[in-house]
Amino acid sequence: MATVYGMTPSGNCWKAVQILRLTGHPIRWVEVDTNGGETRTPAFLHRNPMGKVPVVETEDGNVFVESNAILAHFAEGTPWLPPPGLARTRVFEWLFYEQYSHEPYIAVARNIRAYLRTTKAEAERLERCREGGERALGVMEERLMRHDWLTEPGPTIADLALFAYTHVADEGGFDLQRWPALSAWIARVRALPGIVPLR
Amino acid sequence: MATVYGMTPSGNCWKAVQILRLTGHPIRWVEVDTNGGETRTPAFLHRNPMGKVPVVETEDGNVFVESNAILAHFAEGTPWLPPPGLARTRVFEWLFYEQYSHEPYIAVARNIRAYLRTTKAEAERLERCREGGERALGVMEERLMRHDWLTEPGPTIADLALFAYTHVADEGGFDLQRWPALSAWIARVRALPGIVPLR
Repeated sequence: MATVYGMTPSGNCWKAVQILRLTGHPIRWVEVDTNGGETRTPAFLHRNPMGKVPVVETEDGNVFVESNAILAHFAEGTPWLPPPGLARTRVFEWLFYEQYSHEPYIAVARNIRAYLRTTKAEAERLERCREGGERALGVMEERLMRHDWLTEPGPTIADLALFAYTHVADEGGFDLQRWPALSAWIARVRALPGIVPLR
Repeated sequence: MATVYGMTPSGNCWKAVQILRLTGHPIRWVEVDTNGGETRTPAFLHRNPMGKVPVVETEDGNVFVESNAILAHFAEGTPWLPPPGLARTRVFEWLFYEQYSHEPYIAVARNIRAYLRTTKAEAERLERCREGGERALGVMEERLMRHDWLTEPGPTIADLALFAYTHVADEGGFDLQRWPALSAWIARVRALPGIVPLR
């Protein structure tokens, strides 16, 4: 039994639950109110000094942090992560792209809108998120116009990592119909056995 | 001979050069003016649709992007990256932490100051960078108070990735003397054979 500390609407937390499910780990879920400061308490920081969710704790007492490192850890040795070499490196290129150039725009836009923040500063931040997010979705569209999956030869944790916030990007104000290849890929990921989307 | 497309002051580009040097690859360097828009030209986007440096092109025509994916690719099979398992996962936790919770504050603060942007919006952005950067350096300090390196058992690409912007963090306005264990670690990384710091 693995314990996942997370926040239900979070795409990053979704990744942890999804890879644990896909690799046959039973899960215990502990809800953490990140917006309420629960990731900054001494007890939480003792578990993860980085002060973020998701956190995965396995039965042997090991603690894992950083959603994309969690994806890679539990995917090791399965078809979700190719063995070391070119194919694996392509997966990691997308994982780092997701955390630097996709999530900070699309997840943040979704968060701003979810909490209906309407100050001028937040409106400007939302506009920067729109620009950065559209660029990120455009890069995905470019790839998916010519390929079924983000990397060769089939679906990997790269697809899971990017699916996390892309399939709910409309909640960040992104109209996914503008990217038809991306929309078709979302449908393909949804149809994979064992995938349980956020909605 | 590997070709590295990059910008000389960039810590992300430094990582690519450093791992190629450490693993015995001769390098050809091509300077790219990212601030002047050279990563957004059609020719550059053809090479890297993600529109960023560094880009590494190997003699066999393969192209690699995302600095931390480049670190992992060329470190594979060397002591700089432990084999799959817990030790490797700890390395990736730090690599993702660097790109999400460290670089966007410390590298960005350095960039804002390098270009002496003094608008009110930039001053506010710099203040957010200061807060986030201090938090990131504090997390490193916490680890390094009790350990010589970021992960067990010795120096890995996690140390290289975090060293990239940490050793020049003073250029972003961070006073590294406030974090003594971190400062001692910087000296340890500098003393490793083959390390050529930005300065």
